[in-house]
Amino acid sequence: MSEKAKPCIICVAITGSVPKKADNPAVPITISEQVESTQEAFEAGASIAHCHVRNDDESPTSDPEKFARLKEGLEKHCPGMIVQFSTGGRSGAGQARGGMLPLRPDMASLTVGSNNFPTRVYENPPDLVDWLAAEMRAHEVKPEIEAFDLSHIFQAVAMNKDGRIPGQLYVQFVMGVKNAMPVDREVFDFYVHTVRRLAPDAEWCAAGIGRHQITLNEWCIAEGGHCRT
Amino acid sequence: MSEKAKPCIICVAITGSVPKKADNPAVPITISEQVESTQEAFEAGASIAHCHVRNDDESPTSDPEKFARLKEGLEKHCPGMIVQFSTGGRSGAGQARGGMLPLRPDMASLTVGSNNFPTRVYENPPDLVDWLAAEMRAHEVKPEIEAFDLSHIFQAVAMNKDGRIPGQLYVQFVMGVKNAMPVDREVFDFYVHTVRRLAPDAEWCAAGIGRHQITLNEWCIAEGGHCRT
Ligand SMILES: [Zn+2]
Ligand SMILES: [Zn+2]
Ligand SMILES: [Zn+2]
Ligand SMILES: [Zn+2]
Repeated sequence: MSEKAKPCIICVAITGSVPKKADNPAVPITISEQVESTQEAFEAGASIAHCHVRNDDESPTSDPEKFARLKEGLEKHCPGMIVQFSTGGRSGAGQARGGMLPLRPDMASLTVGSNNFPTRVYENPPDLVDWLAAEMRAHEVKPEIEAFDLSHIFQAVAMNKDGRIPGQLYVQFVMGVKNAMPVDREVFDFYVHTVRRLAPDAEWCAAGIGRHQITLNEWCIAEGGHCRT
Repeated sequence: MSEKAKPCIICVAITGSVPKKADNPAVPITISEQVESTQEAFEAGASIAHCHVRNDDESPTSDPEKFARLKEGLEKHCPGMIVQFSTGGRSGAGQARGGMLPLRPDMASLTVGSNNFPTRVYENPPDLVDWLAAEMRAHEVKPEIEAFDLSHIFQAVAMNKDGRIPGQLYVQFVMGVKNAMPVDREVFDFYVHTVRRLAPDAEWCAAGIGRHQITLNEWCIAEGGHCRT
């Protein structure tokens, strides 16, 4: 099957870690709201659910109890959907970010380097990255590499080669975050080229913030990557 | 004058922040050792001295008093040499990294994003980057942008466009640091292409760790960049 004829995996991120009801009343916050929204996306054809969970005050959390309830709801209402938990740093610090991995979701996000965010450093120190990767191996969770910058692709490939990230790499390019990598077509093309050069069997997709997602989806479809909504 | 016919600026980093006498007895540690080594490089043709200073126990420091003595020695023994101070994070934390900028060196290093180092996060939070850039403007110090990853080039260009980094950009690509960007020819070429695309009048050079420096110098000379020893 040619690269372009591959079925496009559609990945849905129902709730990020930042927007609140005050920004957008449609943002699903409670577990039941999240399950309901994901079910709509699942029925519309989405195959991966990228999941964040929130506290009652809408602040992001890594609480394994909340992740467990979300996973249970998704398994019941979206049978066969790939459940991906976020281990992102907005929701917790240090090893708390991986406390839900023993729940054995199908996938979990993994950032393998550090970079700036709009107002702070997104800290992913090497020992934490290695610990998260080890937890994912122990619980058979497939990582989705969140590549916020070019070196993160190299780091993922290095970790793949030495066994820290076993199997086929799945890389998501994250673009459009202020103070990190902007949305730039030449960079996107170089990301794709670099993944193909260093890890020819890797799968990849791209995530943009807000209005950028549509642009990135068009680029992904054109180049044979997956989509995210 | 064509790109390739430009005189090559040779930048010398006499003392980094990491190696100690135990690793290499030739590493100049005291201010007088540093001045002496730099003078040799100056007489051999180097035009920029990239400067770190050390405590008596050889640990790196940002002590303005030590930087003042080094600057005085270099002005006396290497007249006309461009003095560049490091504001790197191995030598101090937070605003202490810029405490020597009122000494008005010709240049100072400026990292505009964060990334991983071999065992930790190299933290350059946005507010610290903006403060260092403001100090450099206030004291008329020209920044050398240390680009440890691709997004740092974009960030430098954005800061150049909005006035935080005035004038012609001077970018140094740093490659070969473990857990950051490796030494890779395609990435090097894409860095050069990106600088030329986004900031056509910028000057650039590349720094590698240890044995990588010779490779990078060859690439720099071939592409019209400056050299570092
Ligand atoms: Zn995806
Ligand atoms: Zn996420
Ligand atoms: Zn230089
Ligand atoms: Zn340095």
